[in-house]
Amino acid sequence: MAYDPDNIFAKMLKGEIPCHKIYEDENTLAFLDIMPRSEGHTLVIPKAETENLFDVSPDVLAKTMAVVQTLAPKIRDAAGADGVLIQQFNGAAAGQTVFHLHFHIVPRKEGVDLKPHAGDMADQDELAKTAETIRAAL
Amino acid sequence: MAYDPDNIFAKMLKGEIPCHKIYEDENTLAFLDIMPRSEGHTLVIPKAETENLFDVSPDVLAKTMAVVQTLAPKIRDAAGADGVLIQQFNGAAAGQTVFHLHFHIVPRKEGVDLKPHAGDMADQDELAKTAETIRAAL
Repeated sequence: MAYDPDNIFAKMLKGEIPCHKIYEDENTLAFLDIMPRSEGHTLVIPKAETENLFDVSPDVLAKTMAVVQTLAPKIRDAAGADGVLIQQFNGAAAGQTVFHLHFHIVPRKEGVDLKPHAGDMADQDELAKTAETIRAAL
Repeated sequence: MAYDPDNIFAKMLKGEIPCHKIYEDENTLAFLDIMPRSEGHTLVIPKAETENLFDVSPDVLAKTMAVVQTLAPKIRDAAGADGVLIQQFNGAAAGQTVFHLHFHIVPRKEGVDLKPHAGDMADQDELAKTAETIRAAL
């Protein structure tokens, strides 16, 4: 499948639609998942046009993972969580719904189950507050 | 938590216990998960003593991810799958059960549910056959 330049994350990168931004640098953008599996659930994406693990350049992948690694413990602490699940879906059969490479950083609290993948939309005001808390902790 | 040099993956790296090996290089080992969530479920680990994403060096992480990226589409094809789920657990609260950094490569077939995480032990002969099929496809 060819990369679709009008996917929702491409539109975020172009500033055409808003996001609850956590972090941005030359190569990478991180923002809250609007259907969070737990509080603080963040997506990290490269700015390069790349669909998933199958077509990303190793250099872009390494830069994206470096941001995942830096953010993960900070998001864990800001969310008052005990652990972090990293997930990345390749292909519709694997659960990929947006075809721009993205890594999920999902904070996990002891004894608290995750909400479903691609489940309910969160309240925008709550997301804005969570994003502010995490940004302040970076 | 300090790294436990007697964890099960450390013992595999030292050759003290066997594994169904898929791939090995100077920095990395890949082998079948003995409690597979789908056929071909593979774990990729660095040889460095590192517990998870919170303590791995960025260099070791990049080398490990490069192997994950190389193996993922080949394992997908060898398993006759349609997509690939990548998962990585940090901390017991996130589902980590072996405290040596590992990335899960989980082949996904359209319409086939995953078995539970850390579920039933697979038949050793079946695992050996699956490993052989994947190694032949590399």
